[in-house]
Amino acid sequence: MKSKPLILITNDDGITAPGIRTLISIMNEIGDVIVIAPDSPQSGMGHAITLDSTIYCDAVTIDEGEQLEYRCSGTPADCVKMAISEVLNKRPDLCVSGINHGANSSINVLYSGTMSAAIEAGIEGIPAIGFSLLDYSWHANFDKLKEHIKKIALEVLENGMPDGVVLNVNFPKIEENDFKGIKICRQARANWVEEFDKRTNPQGKEYYWLTGKFVNLDHGEDTDVWALENDYISVVPVHLDLTAHHFITELNSWNL
Amino acid sequence: MKSKPLILITNDDGITAPGIRTLISIMNEIGDVIVIAPDSPQSGMGHAITLDSTIYCDAVTIDEGEQLEYRCSGTPADCVKMAISEVLNKRPDLCVSGINHGANSSINVLYSGTMSAAIEAGIEGIPAIGFSLLDYSWHANFDKLKEHIKKIALEVLENGMPDGVVLNVNFPKIEENDFKGIKICRQARANWVEEFDKRTNPQGKEYYWLTGKFVNLDHGEDTDVWALENDYISVVPVHLDLTAHHFITELNSWNL
Repeated sequence: MKSKPLILITNDDGITAPGIRTLISIMNEIGDVIVIAPDSPQSGMGHAITLDSTIYCDAVTIDEGEQLEYRCSGTPADCVKMAISEVLNKRPDLCVSGINHGANSSINVLYSGTMSAAIEAGIEGIPAIGFSLLDYSWHANFDKLKEHIKKIALEVLENGMPDGVVLNVNFPKIEENDFKGIKICRQARANWVEEFDKRTNPQGKEYYWLTGKFVNLDHGEDTDVWALENDYISVVPVHLDLTAHHFITELNSWNL
Repeated sequence: MKSKPLILITNDDGITAPGIRTLISIMNEIGDVIVIAPDSPQSGMGHAITLDSTIYCDAVTIDEGEQLEYRCSGTPADCVKMAISEVLNKRPDLCVSGINHGANSSINVLYSGTMSAAIEAGIEGIPAIGFSLLDYSWHANFDKLKEHIKKIALEVLENGMPDGVVLNVNFPKIEENDFKGIKICRQARANWVEEFDKRTNPQGKEYYWLTGKFVNLDHGEDTDVWALENDYISVVPVHLDLTAHHFITELNSWNL
């Protein structure tokens, strides 16, 4: 009999977030689960790694599942490095990150600690998936996602992934009925228009909070934003080669 | 007479680093310069942004150039957002980031605060370039880079850049002679093999330092790593669309 797959789980909302607890319960049905996740929220950490500071990583028990768990003081990308280089004695068959409380579609893939953890696993050659729900609430309802997450994870385990490619899966927030289905998409070309909220601290010094508005000027119907706005689950294959291959020929004609 | 271009400068080594001071002196010859850079080192910050904490941004004078300068408590990506949304009253014609003390070739583009600042400018539709020298020393010699940086910046101002594409420029460390030339390259498929340095703190608790070894198994002669190993300046066009377009057709054939 084939042995159970080894599944590494992390996230960026912290190890106690309901999203990762749901993901652990789903993956316990599929394989042997090890969790190495941040000990505090790390949203917006992008692909940060800890170079100038120390990292703690301690075994912990949070609930009754069969998983082994470690909480780590580092970033999501640090957690994956720590798992592979220090904690695990064999390579995981799959890395899943999330379920993120909030969207990681479009340009958010660059800011997202959840997706950077998945990409870090991809750098290490491990098939990986980031899962996100378009609901920032700590008390979001993840029930409708479960069967889809299980199916997507099983498909990745079955088919494998090309070198350096991982999946970015986002679920729309739907109140009634079920999702309309799954769409394979490209990342929408959108951005945030920032609105810094300027305030004065009790000592009279000015400071800012970063806020902003998501603006999508990409009207393609093949994008993740379109799929999510139309109640589909979006799946974007994401790769770690940032080369703009289409611009190399023109750049060679420049006078450099 | 055409007005001088407005040039935004940032980095990830901090506003007092010799690399950014050199970049400022070069850009002062080309345009009107505004500097908004981190008040402390931010290496390895990737595309992190500050969501859970406040940001300070204060005018400062560091040396005698004509530039205007602000030091910011945020990440490199925050600095670019702050510049565009809060400090500047018109859009910059160019954003340059660096000169980074150390390599940002290959997979380092994902971990680099310097390159994430350039990419952030690209998200905002501003032509942008990240410059890095393969010398981690604070006292690195940037003299040989100057004419090349000026030329590359002028070419970008002259030609513009396609939407969402920025340049990642790395300079090899050469002791004698000059660079062999400039190569337009793709990002090498390499990674870091981590070696966590495990120690015990004075209270008896275990902690780690992240260290590692750069491993390049990509033997293509069209990569940035190859160019740098052969004394060429590497220029990689980098884009913010992480979609693995080549995998979409196959993914559509999966049973999702």
